[in-house]
This record gives sequence, C-alpha cells and structure tokens, in this order.
Amino acid sequence: MKRKRILSGMQPSGKLHLGNYFGALKNWVDLQDEFECYFFIADWHALSSLYEGPGRIKDFSFEVAIDWLSAGLDPEKCTMFLQSDIPEHAELHLILSMIVPVPWLERNPTYKEKQDEIKNVDMNSYGFLGYPVLQTADIVLYKADYVPVGIDQAPHLELSREIVRRFNKLYKKVFIEPGAKISDIPKLNGLDGRKMSKTYNNTIFLSDGEKEVGKKVQSMLTDPARARRDDPGNPDVCNLYPFHKIYSPKAMQDEINTDCRTAKIGCGDCKKLLSQTMVEGMRPMMEKRREFLACPDVVKEILHEGTLKARVIAKSTLEQAKQAMKLK
Amino acid sequence: MKRKRILSGMQPSGKLHLGNYFGALKNWVDLQDEFECYFFIADWHALSSLYEGPGRIKDFSFEVAIDWLSAGLDPEKCTMFLQSDIPEHAELHLILSMIVPVPWLERNPTYKEKQDEIKNVDMNSYGFLGYPVLQTADIVLYKADYVPVGIDQAPHLELSREIVRRFNKLYKKVFIEPGAKISDIPKLNGLDGRKMSKTYNNTIFLSDGEKEVGKKVQSMLTDPARARRDDPGNPDVCNLYPFHKIYSPKAMQDEINTDCRTAKIGCGDCKKLLSQTMVEGMRPMMEKRREFLACPDVVKEILHEGTLKARVIAKSTLEQAKQAMKLK
Repeated sequence: MKRKRILSGMQPSGKLHLGNYFGALKNWVDLQDEFECYFFIADWHALSSLYEGPGRIKDFSFEVAIDWLSAGLDPEKCTMFLQSDIPEHAELHLILSMIVPVPWLERNPTYKEKQDEIKNVDMNSYGFLGYPVLQTADIVLYKADYVPVGIDQAPHLELSREIVRRFNKLYKKVFIEPGAKISDIPKLNGLDGRKMSKTYNNTIFLSDGEKEVGKKVQSMLTDPARARRDDPGNPDVCNLYPFHKIYSPKAMQDEINTDCRTAKIGCGDCKKLLSQTMVEGMRPMMEKRREFLACPDVVKEILHEGTLKARVIAKSTLEQAKQAMKLK
Repeated sequence: MKRKRILSGMQPSGKLHLGNYFGALKNWVDLQDEFECYFFIADWHALSSLYEGPGRIKDFSFEVAIDWLSAGLDPEKCTMFLQSDIPEHAELHLILSMIVPVPWLERNPTYKEKQDEIKNVDMNSYGFLGYPVLQTADIVLYKADYVPVGIDQAPHLELSREIVRRFNKLYKKVFIEPGAKISDIPKLNGLDGRKMSKTYNNTIFLSDGEKEVGKKVQSMLTDPARARRDDPGNPDVCNLYPFHKIYSPKAMQDEINTDCRTAKIGCGDCKKLLSQTMVEGMRPMMEKRREFLACPDVVKEILHEGTLKARVIAKSTLEQAKQAMKLK
C-alpha cells in the first residue's frame, strides 16, 4: 500500500531551539519512518516578517537545514527542500489568489494575532494577509494527505481545506483536502518559565554546545516558592522538572520527584543532574552537527536533491491544475 | 542612443473592438517604430474576472493575438508574449507582495470602481485586490521607461511607482519608476452613443467583415434631434461624425459638415458614405487577419519567439532583484 504523504515547513527565522524541536521537529523525525514526508524551508514566508533585512534569510535557511539534519531528518527517508527553489509555489499561489475571497483572509484569527505579536515590524503587507494562500499552494502542490500541526494551527488548515474545496468545485477535483496530524507536544517552557522563544532570550538552541547547555540549565528558574535550600520543593510547578521527564532516566525522575519534596536534593544538584542527562541526550545531535558543519556542500547537495525530487511533483500538480482550469 | 523601452498589456476578455483599437492598440502600432516595445497578453489578470470559466481565456488570448497582428503590431518591430508563459511574473509578484501595505491597495480607486462595474462576477478575490502588485511586476520586470496609459489609468501607475520606490529604498536601485506615456485618444462611442463596450453590445469588432461593418453603421444612432429627413442635423452632437473624422477624407468630412446642417444630405446617405470609407480603412486589417487566420501556427510561433526574448530580460531582472535583497 502506498504510504500517505505528509508535508510541513518551517520559516527560517534563526537557529532552532528545544521548543521548536519538541513542538515539531522531533515529531517530523518520527513521521519520516511511517510516511512519505516532504519538509521545506519556507523562505518566501519568512519575507513577510524579515522584508526589512532579507539578507539574513539565506543564512537562517542554512542553519535550519543543519538543525534538521542534526536532529535526525534523514535524506534517505524524507525529502527536504527550499521553497523558493520551486517557483511553482509562486505560480500556484498567484492562481489560487484569484479564487480566494479577501474576507476569508481577514477572518483568519492568526492574521490579527501575529500583527499584535510582532511589534518591531509592520506586518500589514499584502503578502502577509495572503500567507494562507501561499501556505495552501505549498501543501496542495504535493497532494499531502496530512499536515502535522499543533492544535493552535488548526484554523490555517481549515482555510486551506476551504480553498481546496473551492478549487475542486469550480474546476475539477485536482487537490486533496489536507488532514491535520496532531501530535502530543510535551509542555516545555523557556529558561525563565515563559514560553520558549527567541524574543524572550530564554532558549536552549539545538546548536548549543555542552558548556552552553550546562550554563543555561544553571540559570533556569525552578520552583519560585522554594526560597532556601531547606524548603521543600514542588516538581509539579518546577520549570526544570519537565526537562528531567524528557532527558533523565525514569529512576532518576522518581528519585528527584521524592527528594525535592523533602528537600533532600537542592536545586543546584538537581540542575547538575539535568545538565548531565541533557548533554547526554543532545550528544548525538551535537555530533551530527559537527559532521554536517564540516561539509556544508553535503547539506547543499541534500537540499538540491530534495528540490529535484519535489519539483517533479510540483510541476505535475501545477500542470493538472492548469488543465482542470483549461488554461493550457 | 538606446531606444527607450515601453511595456503594455491587454487582458484577453474577448475580441477587440474599435474602442480598444483607438483607445490603445493604434497607439501601440505607432509606438513600435520609435520605442523598444513589449506587449503582453495579460491572461493571469484575466483570471480575476473570468475565474468561473477560465477555459475561455485560452481562446480569447489567441483572438487578441490575431487582433494585434491584424492591426499592425509587427513581430519584427516589437515583442509580443503571453504573461503566463513567463513564470517570473508570478515570482516577482510574490516577492513584491511582501513589501506592499494592504492599505495602498484598498485605497486604489479602480478597485472599488471595478467591483461596482462588474456585476455578474464576485470581484472580491485576494488576487483582484492585489492586481496592482502583479501589474507592477509586469512592468518592472522589463525595466520599462514608459507605460502607455489613458488618463484614467494614471492612478495604477502611481501605485506602481510607489512600489518601485519602496523596493529601491529598502534594498537597492534595481527597478525603474515607469513614466506615463499619455496619448491623444479620439472620442468614439458605440453604435448607440454610449461608451463602446462588449457589455452594451454596441461595438464594431476589429474582426467584423465588410457586411457586418455596413450593417452596424446602418444601425448607428445619429443626431437624435434630427427626427425627419428634412430637419437640419448637427455633426457636433452626431454619433456618426467622429467616425467620418477618422475614416473619411477631409473633403468629404467638410462636405458632410455643411450638408448635414442644411439637410442637404440625409443620415442614410451619410451612413452609406461612412460604410464605404470605414470598410476601406479597415481593409488592410481584414486582409492581414485572413492571412494570420490561415496559419495559426505562425501566430503561436510569434508569441513563442516573443516569450523567448522577453524571458531573458525577465529572468535577468528577477535575478538582480533577488541579489539586491541578498536572497541569492
């Protein structure tokens, strides 16, 4: 039986951190074994917030590719490419733009949210208003069955499905309504207890080395109520403990869970333990990173091969869309 | 000295009529001797109003090409191509979309006007809101010095210039602010005295044969105040007379101008005279049309050659734009 197809992308807006990893990338690494996966670096999308200094997008894209490969995306198992290397995205975006009513886009809740969230850049461009149109082109060009999304991204996908239905009804059934592949995302916050985000400068990057990880773990907020070493702590509200649940062996987790509540272990010791298990957990990633950083041409070649493979599908789908519209 | 470059396009929405000819096409035919001219069939733009039945665009595009060639556009003198054959238009459109604020487009007076004008199609698409963005991409890809426009199209061009200034300021001076090439357009109405338009079914098509022209001239509204043959007429308000001024020799124009006012000549005779001079004036067009209709492959080849030539420029400009943005 043919494997179902999955498509997803990430904007190259800088180095990826553990929030990105556990929020999406780790899931992708798992999915590549079971599904036919296409992952793209959404550099055209990145323009919507980086248009004032788009020169960074090129470097960010390379960093993202290195992060992906280090984290375990395997070019033997999945297809990785750069969005702007496949101009069919732009062409289908233009065609779809003619059948998407403006109110559909204005109603999109994330449009207003992002505008409120991103303060330092004017996010009122025509392109940003239409990003769900480009996103739909991204997805349907590959006839993806599923898009892995967090719960909060479900509205984007509903809009894509609406656009697909409109196209298929106006012309002919060419596109597939993409389904949501919702995965469990462990709740992890940043060093300071707020959402992990580059904006808050509270991240652990996938590219951090042993020393940085150790230093960052040492700086982490723990249970704010545990003011002194002798106070008992509460792992349920501690910002550190969720990391133990990911990186430390079950026995250690249980021991900490008990010893923290009786003040048998202090936050300093607890952090030392986490540093060790986290560095251990991240070591394969660190090693792979070194390999790929040593041969940037390999990374470029992987993206190039991915582009060649993806573009065959993109071209074919665009052709089918044009034929359905009797444009060709 | 290098000739200045001109770019213009027409939407393929059906056969061209004399209003299109005297409003734009005749001007193009004149311009091709003096300027380096690029004329394109704007089939992607046509989608904004024909998206419910886009199959017609292909036929309309061919008809427009035949009309152009019959009217005297000469592939030895100018470059003709189909917009959708050059995907760089779509790509630059996407890039420019990221730097054009939505309010610039909402303020565009023709956006609302067209929405009011076109009743039978829902003109509220994202693509139609953004047509000045695509239009700007069309123009600046060829670094056109001038765009021939009617006075009423000046606002579109101002918006394009604004987008060019924004790009050049944000990144680097790549694009040229296109100037308006405003030409004298003779005032010609349709058969019934209203603006000549397919919507009103009051047109004389460039493709009409001798008989049709004769029949249509016979049906034309003249001076409404001249109810009887013996009433004196007034060429200044007559719907027919402007056609005499275009098609009839000066001596005939003067004679009619005098004889109408004294009722020496009746409207029937006046129409007969116009039929003859008009058919005579349109004969070269009719003959050329027959030639091109007999070899449709020649027409396709002309567009194909035009595409090859235009695409070299489009690719080069897009490359420069990407380099200016440091995307490549």
